[in-house]
Amino acid sequence: LPNDEGNSASPKVTAERRVRTDARRNIEKLLTAARSVFAASGVDASVREIAEKAGVGMGTLYRHFPQRSDLIAAVVRSEVDACADAALSLAADHEPGEALALWMNRYVDLIVAKRGLAAALSSGSPAVDSLPAYFEMRLRPALQALLDAAAAAGEVRGDIDPYDLLMAVARLSTTNQGVDQHARQMVSILVDGLRYGASPKSQ
Amino acid sequence: LPNDEGNSASPKVTAERRVRTDARRNIEKLLTAARSVFAASGVDASVREIAEKAGVGMGTLYRHFPQRSDLIAAVVRSEVDACADAALSLAADHEPGEALALWMNRYVDLIVAKRGLAAALSSGSPAVDSLPAYFEMRLRPALQALLDAAAAAGEVRGDIDPYDLLMAVARLSTTNQGVDQHARQMVSILVDGLRYGASPKSQ
Repeated sequence: LPNDEGNSASPKVTAERRVRTDARRNIEKLLTAARSVFAASGVDASVREIAEKAGVGMGTLYRHFPQRSDLIAAVVRSEVDACADAALSLAADHEPGEALALWMNRYVDLIVAKRGLAAALSSGSPAVDSLPAYFEMRLRPALQALLDAAAAAGEVRGDIDPYDLLMAVARLSTTNQGVDQHARQMVSILVDGLRYGASPKSQ
Repeated sequence: LPNDEGNSASPKVTAERRVRTDARRNIEKLLTAARSVFAASGVDASVREIAEKAGVGMGTLYRHFPQRSDLIAAVVRSEVDACADAALSLAADHEPGEALALWMNRYVDLIVAKRGLAAALSSGSPAVDSLPAYFEMRLRPALQALLDAAAAAGEVRGDIDPYDLLMAVARLSTTNQGVDQHARQMVSILVDGLRYGASPKSQ
C-alpha cells in the first residue's frame, strides 16, 4: 500500500519510512532466528549464530538488542503476542467453549516456552522487568474475550476473572518436571469446571 | 480396655504400658500446646511457653522433641492425620460428591497451616525430610476413597489419580499472598471439572 497517504508523502518521509520498514524486518528476522537457536541450543547460544541465521550483521543485532536479556525478553514478548493473537483465530474457527479450551492449551505451551527462557531473565533490566505486565496486558483481554463469548453462548459460567484463571493455569503448569500430561489433564479439568458451572445438573 | 490381653499381662508389662500411655498423653498435650502457640506467636515462639501451656517440664519436651524442627514436624504430621481422618467423617455425613468437595477445602486449610510452619522446616532433619512421604502416605488413600465413592455414585469422573489431584490443589493454593478467595474459587472449579466429566452434556 505505498500510496496510502496520497500526495502528502514527501521523498524524505518515504525514505524514513523505508528505513523503519527495514529495521522492523531485521528485528523480525532476528527474533525468528533467536527463537529457533534458543530452542535448539538453549538460552546461552551464541549471538553470532543468531545474527548469521538472521542474515544480519552483529552491529545490527547489538543496535536493536544491546544485551542478551533484551533479545530474550523480545522473544518472550513475541511469543506472548502470538498466543494473544491465537485467541482471535481460534474464536473464528471453533465454537466458543472449544475455542476457550484450545486456547488454554496454547497458553500452557507459552508457559513451557517461557520457562525455558526464564532462567536467563533474572538480570533486572527494564526489558525483563516489564514482562509480567506485558503478559497481563496482552493475555488478559485475549482470555476475557474468549470467556465472554463462551459465557454468552451458555457454555461456561460467567463469573470468572480472566486474571485468576491465567494465574491458576500457570500454577497448575508449574511442576518440577516441566509441564507433563498430568498437569495438562488438570488444566483440562479446570476448563471442564468452567463448563459445569454454566448449567448445573446436581442440586 | 485394660484387660484386653487377659491373663498374659504381668505387673511389669502393665507398668510399662502405663509409662507408654503417660508418654503418649504428654506428646498429645505438647502437640496441642505447640499448635496453638505456633498459631498465635509464629514458629519461633518460645518452647518454654509451649511446655508451660502443656503442663509438662522442659525435660519432657526435649526428650520427645530434641529440636524445634522435631516439634514442628510433629505438629504438621498431626495436622495431616486430622485431615486424613476428616475424609472418613465427611464421607459418613455427606453425599459422595459433596464429601469430596468439602474435603478439598479441608485440604486447602491444611496447606495454609503447613505453609505457616514451612519456613522453619529447611533443617534437613529426618523428621522434616520424611514429611512429603508422610503427606502422600496419609492423604493419597484418603482422597482415593473419596474419589472412588463419588465415581461409583456417578457424581465425578473415574479416571483421576488422587496424587495428581493433591498436587494440583497444592499448586493452585500456592500464591504469593497465601491462599485467598481467588485460589479457593479455582479449587472449587477444579472439583466442578471432576463432576462435569462424570456426565458430559456437550458433544
